[in-house]
Amino acid sequence: MDEIHKVFQFITEIDKLKAVTRQNRPIGINRMENSAEHSWQAALLAMTMAKYSPVSIDQAKVVQMLLLHDIVEIDAGDTILYDEVGREAKEIEELAAAKRIFSLLPSDIGDEYLATWCEFEERKTPEAIFAYAMDRLIPVVQNFTNRPTTWEEHGVSIEQVIRLNTPIGDGVPEAWQIAEREIRKAFDEFTNK
Amino acid sequence: MDEIHKVFQFITEIDKLKAVTRQNRPIGINRMENSAEHSWQAALLAMTMAKYSPVSIDQAKVVQMLLLHDIVEIDAGDTILYDEVGREAKEIEELAAAKRIFSLLPSDIGDEYLATWCEFEERKTPEAIFAYAMDRLIPVVQNFTNRPTTWEEHGVSIEQVIRLNTPIGDGVPEAWQIAEREIRKAFDEFTNK
Repeated sequence: MDEIHKVFQFITEIDKLKAVTRQNRPIGINRMENSAEHSWQAALLAMTMAKYSPVSIDQAKVVQMLLLHDIVEIDAGDTILYDEVGREAKEIEELAAAKRIFSLLPSDIGDEYLATWCEFEERKTPEAIFAYAMDRLIPVVQNFTNRPTTWEEHGVSIEQVIRLNTPIGDGVPEAWQIAEREIRKAFDEFTNK
Repeated sequence: MDEIHKVFQFITEIDKLKAVTRQNRPIGINRMENSAEHSWQAALLAMTMAKYSPVSIDQAKVVQMLLLHDIVEIDAGDTILYDEVGREAKEIEELAAAKRIFSLLPSDIGDEYLATWCEFEERKTPEAIFAYAMDRLIPVVQNFTNRPTTWEEHGVSIEQVIRLNTPIGDGVPEAWQIAEREIRKAFDEFTNK
């Protein structure tokens, strides 16, 4: 009963992720998206794409990673991918957030979630590499579909977009082939307009 | 490659779920929540609570159900639990939506998702019963924590709240014990104010 109470506290706490704003608009919706709805889509995309991974991956682990990966933003906020300095500075803050939030849970579950979160952050296992690719792919699809792109709005260069999103290809090579082509098309369109 | 294109179309389409509004506020956030962020929380709650199920359940299946369960609202909209007549009328519309949206996917994945969605709706398997319980539990926690509750705002009676949420106990009996006590406290508070 005490454990169930702890789960209730955790689930109440994570409602706050719905108030953390990212720097992407959902397609056709005129507001920035939040990290909770993004996490849903990332987990669902990973579940759907898992069969196209060229290496064997534990699909349940990948889904778990993506359901959990952004929870630290409740304390640390979201930092846009293209702010490379800001992202590095955030690492300590994010680890502290993971420890605080997962410790609300019964210790066995909290320890498991913290380990999964760290595994994702380290990006070394096939599951973490795949999950990271799916996490990257969604804002790319939103940006090459929406106008104006938040790339334009943030003055991000095509070189930076290509370089920082190339890890999509480590998850599903064909997905990166399509995405790269669409990124180039989008930049052509708005730099020549 | 053609299959990956289809997954891109699906993932673009489901962005629309972020614009479907539910009749619950996230805790401490002054707006109604949308069905995408709710789906994230439902899947995460189910993953966390799975070990407290008194019967053996396939956790990955439960998570899949909750990632998918509300996608039909892209076409059919959200209907509040307490509109019992409206909910029954929605069934045909929701099945048509499931068929349309899942058919965007490569057929093996689309067929699997449609079957999972139907299994959830029928609420007969242990996984569907558990997933439904978790789906119910979140707005209950939000409502007994937030003031004003959307129960007050919609003039829902305590009898209706108790009756329609009792299935939470079919998933995790202890969770329903806590929830029922908190529902009664919340109603005491706002009916006596």
